[in-house]
Amino acid sequence: MHGLIGKMTMVAGKRDEVLAILLGSTTKMPGCLSYIIAKDLKDENAIWITEVWDSAESHKASLSLPEVKEAISKARPLIAGFSDYVTTTPVGGHALPKG
Amino acid sequence: MHGLIGKMTMVAGKRDEVLAILLGSTTKMPGCLSYIIAKDLKDENAIWITEVWDSAESHKASLSLPEVKEAISKARPLIAGFSDYVTTTPVGGHALPKG
Repeated sequence: MHGLIGKMTMVAGKRDEVLAILLGSTTKMPGCLSYIIAKDLKDENAIWITEVWDSAESHKASLSLPEVKEAISKARPLIAGFSDYVTTTPVGGHALPKG
Repeated sequence: MHGLIGKMTMVAGKRDEVLAILLGSTTKMPGCLSYIIAKDLKDENAIWITEVWDSAESHKASLSLPEVKEAISKARPLIAGFSDYVTTTPVGGHALPKG
């Protein structure tokens, strides 16, 4: 498995707009076992995204999906930056699909 | 919803032992919507834990579950420290149970 954790900071006041874009684009991604979008409690312009994929290849392939490319294109002007980016190897847990 | 992201660093060489303890104790926690345990790719003694709960109260209550208390007791001597701790408000995503 392949995991990603990262913080995305939006242009001031644009968090809700980016959340709506992300939530609409992440429903059907082959190989995606978990994709959780969360608001930072201390920074009103920041969110955290945590992802689990069956492989790094599936994650890379997702970036070419039409829905994802469209979401990236819409969100890009509203994003001020990325930070705290970590790649991991998930080993298990609860609510990951078995299989 | 209530979310947690954090890094746990183990005493040198003890990561696999702690992973086994955690994986055995996190299966039945009321209110836990997602609990993912992942190895850090760059630090062989570190892991990342990302959690989603229906509420902060459910997370707090989980710390009193017998299985969790036993796991904490077993793991504590093997843990060197915690860092990168973030609390979030998850707003959605993929593979979170609907309910």
